[in-house]
Amino acid sequence: MEKKKITIAGAGLVGSLLAAYFGKKGHQVEVYERRPDMRTTLIDGGRSINLALSNRGWKALDGVGISEEVRKMAIPMYRRVMHATDGALSFQPYGKENEAIYSVSRGGLNALLMREAEKHENVQIFFNQRCEDVNTSAPSATFFSEETEKIKEIESDLVFGTDGAFSAIRTALIKNDRYNYSQHFIEHGYKELSIPANADGSHKMEREALHIWPRGNFMLIALPNPDGTFTCTLFLAHEGEYSFENIPNLASARKFFETHFSDALNLMPHFDKEWVENPVSSLVIIRCFPWSKDGKVAILGDASHAIVPFYGQGMNSGFEDCTVMAEMMAKHGDDWESLLKDFEQQRKPDADAIADLAMRNFVEMRDLTGNPEFLLRKKIEARFAARHPDKWMPLYSMVTFSHIRYSEALKEGQRQDKIMEEVMMIDGLADKWDSEEIEQKMISLLASK
Amino acid sequence: MEKKKITIAGAGLVGSLLAAYFGKKGHQVEVYERRPDMRTTLIDGGRSINLALSNRGWKALDGVGISEEVRKMAIPMYRRVMHATDGALSFQPYGKENEAIYSVSRGGLNALLMREAEKHENVQIFFNQRCEDVNTSAPSATFFSEETEKIKEIESDLVFGTDGAFSAIRTALIKNDRYNYSQHFIEHGYKELSIPANADGSHKMEREALHIWPRGNFMLIALPNPDGTFTCTLFLAHEGEYSFENIPNLASARKFFETHFSDALNLMPHFDKEWVENPVSSLVIIRCFPWSKDGKVAILGDASHAIVPFYGQGMNSGFEDCTVMAEMMAKHGDDWESLLKDFEQQRKPDADAIADLAMRNFVEMRDLTGNPEFLLRKKIEARFAARHPDKWMPLYSMVTFSHIRYSEALKEGQRQDKIMEEVMMIDGLADKWDSEEIEQKMISLLASK
Repeated sequence: MEKKKITIAGAGLVGSLLAAYFGKKGHQVEVYERRPDMRTTLIDGGRSINLALSNRGWKALDGVGISEEVRKMAIPMYRRVMHATDGALSFQPYGKENEAIYSVSRGGLNALLMREAEKHENVQIFFNQRCEDVNTSAPSATFFSEETEKIKEIESDLVFGTDGAFSAIRTALIKNDRYNYSQHFIEHGYKELSIPANADGSHKMEREALHIWPRGNFMLIALPNPDGTFTCTLFLAHEGEYSFENIPNLASARKFFETHFSDALNLMPHFDKEWVENPVSSLVIIRCFPWSKDGKVAILGDASHAIVPFYGQGMNSGFEDCTVMAEMMAKHGDDWESLLKDFEQQRKPDADAIADLAMRNFVEMRDLTGNPEFLLRKKIEARFAARHPDKWMPLYSMVTFSHIRYSEALKEGQRQDKIMEEVMMIDGLADKWDSEEIEQKMISLLASK
Repeated sequence: MEKKKITIAGAGLVGSLLAAYFGKKGHQVEVYERRPDMRTTLIDGGRSINLALSNRGWKALDGVGISEEVRKMAIPMYRRVMHATDGALSFQPYGKENEAIYSVSRGGLNALLMREAEKHENVQIFFNQRCEDVNTSAPSATFFSEETEKIKEIESDLVFGTDGAFSAIRTALIKNDRYNYSQHFIEHGYKELSIPANADGSHKMEREALHIWPRGNFMLIALPNPDGTFTCTLFLAHEGEYSFENIPNLASARKFFETHFSDALNLMPHFDKEWVENPVSSLVIIRCFPWSKDGKVAILGDASHAIVPFYGQGMNSGFEDCTVMAEMMAKHGDDWESLLKDFEQQRKPDADAIADLAMRNFVEMRDLTGNPEFLLRKKIEARFAARHPDKWMPLYSMVTFSHIRYSEALKEGQRQDKIMEEVMMIDGLADKWDSEEIEQKMISLLASK
């Protein structure tokens, strides 16, 4: 294999993992990161500080052998805990026994990935380097150093952009003729809040769970941290009846929480300060194509397919990009032009599918998890899947606990929807949902759809 | 009314007409155009040199009183003439008797609109001025003069961007948070060719018609010019089986035309030169929102809603923007913030609708106009519309010959589709399409859909 000189713009989660993959292969890798080194500087990136790691992510971490280390900083979340307005709780397991998604801190995981990449002598990370320009034909990338205030043009064999939803590398690709691009901001934004630990360091709510307060058009969620705290996120429209715009001050914010999330508010002693200080952030969906140019420049992760966070697949899909990139390196060897073409051709439909699935899961989380009919459907599916694992894997499990391509999971999920629509119309379903009759009905529907 | 200082970027068709509208109102208008003055310089803009003007366009021209002058340079096209592969012709009227779309030259019309704008002392047009930057809060726009090579920042009360699909003004708007934007290049591109006049200056094919050679996934069209020539456009995919990529040289181009367009090729003595010299151009669909910022900056025409040319509505929809802008000026007076908000709120769904309709008409033109079932459907619709004008206006007529909002035309068209789907399934339809039975069936379907 020919050793290449590779420039990576962005040392976030995907960039650091990609550097570790390339480093392991022996390539000469230089990573340029806009922000200071998070391992020595406290950074408030304005980004969500908790993430849900699931099977696709774990597989990609396995590929560079750091799953075990990550597992030590992760909290398994085995089920959703739904909080009703009156504080009543209900529960929904994410998968089969022992299947969980894992709450990890963005900062901690990112630091670990950077360390892993830098274990390779042939990998270097430079900080405070803002990407100013990219020459896609050289290729070269130009960075402005915030420290020396100097501009440096870096030539290499390959340039990778893992520089996020507002990627500078993508901005260079867009200038090419016939470049398809869209940025769509959804109507909802988010604000982060927190629930501190008990005095003894324990959690104030069930620890190994993802908590949701579904309220129709908006919702609050909470993910556990190892230090006993929860990170909470309010998802709410920017404008309209229930919206950030309609909560103009702290008094109205407190009133809003007292009305809709009183049990959560009771656990938030820092609510006032956090409400005032923490920003309202926007959520964007990025779609573009192609993802590469002439076998020399390519973009991965949020740079090529930023999605909304509601399926917990933003990081996982970016990490899966690295898995697929490793497969492509094994398949194509030194032919980077074919490699990057094959990569984008295979990966684009999966990126589109998870973008759609993530929006769809938002409706499910904020609205349906409070809906008895929806919960009944989930129970029927779970029972059938347990008895006929060869015939049925719930959509959530395909996305979260399998390595089935997102595009295939979406297609199979649409087929399951058609079947469950008919099942849900059966008279007296609530009393016989776990009966032989329903099971047989589903088997016959599976044969016909 | 308060007289405003207004900067317009772009003196193309929409920019020049908008300047005439503002000039008429007495505003102080400065228009900055990137290209040289087309009235003194021969310009090869790479853009289609023929356009089909229809009712929405005429209405907007009426608003500044220049319809009569434009009519002198326009050729009515009363029907489509379809050319089969063997050269056989078939015909389809565009509307009722005397209803036509009008072939006009882009350059001639643009020059006339610029002259009309400059009739007002308070309107000035500056050429060779490339927009470099826009400050949306001042507002101001910065232009680089190709002549003096100097940069000038122009402050004004309002800045309008009518600078086309790759608008510099829009680029400034995109930088705002939560800006939705997409650029989508369709898989087809186009190349222009020509059919010269006879020696006596007459046309070599039927003059008052739009000629189409529909061939499934690709097509050739021809529009008449007053000098006896036709401007022809080949629409063909960039890549794939039938594609520009698959016609690598002149010999294969001649072979392609001999196979698919032999009657047209016989009328093209300059084919070889034109094939080699004329570029393959791309077709882009632009969608974005919002179209304005703080009542100070706004974009119109292709800058805010570039569409594909297959409904002949690109210019017409841009001109209709001017009509709606005039209505908004009458409604809102000096309150430009409300005016521009109202404008974009009302106009955006119509721009989205005509974007969809235009793509849909591409399928119709290239594929269905050669399809007997489609032509039968059109005949049934035309007959029913003639007998029941209060109940049915064909979609093409709503878009082309009416001022019904595009969004409403699209909705009504979808309703008509449902009805015609049922009608087309009637046994023996070809023999009784003009019968009382079919008429009654349509009346009853109209009541139920």
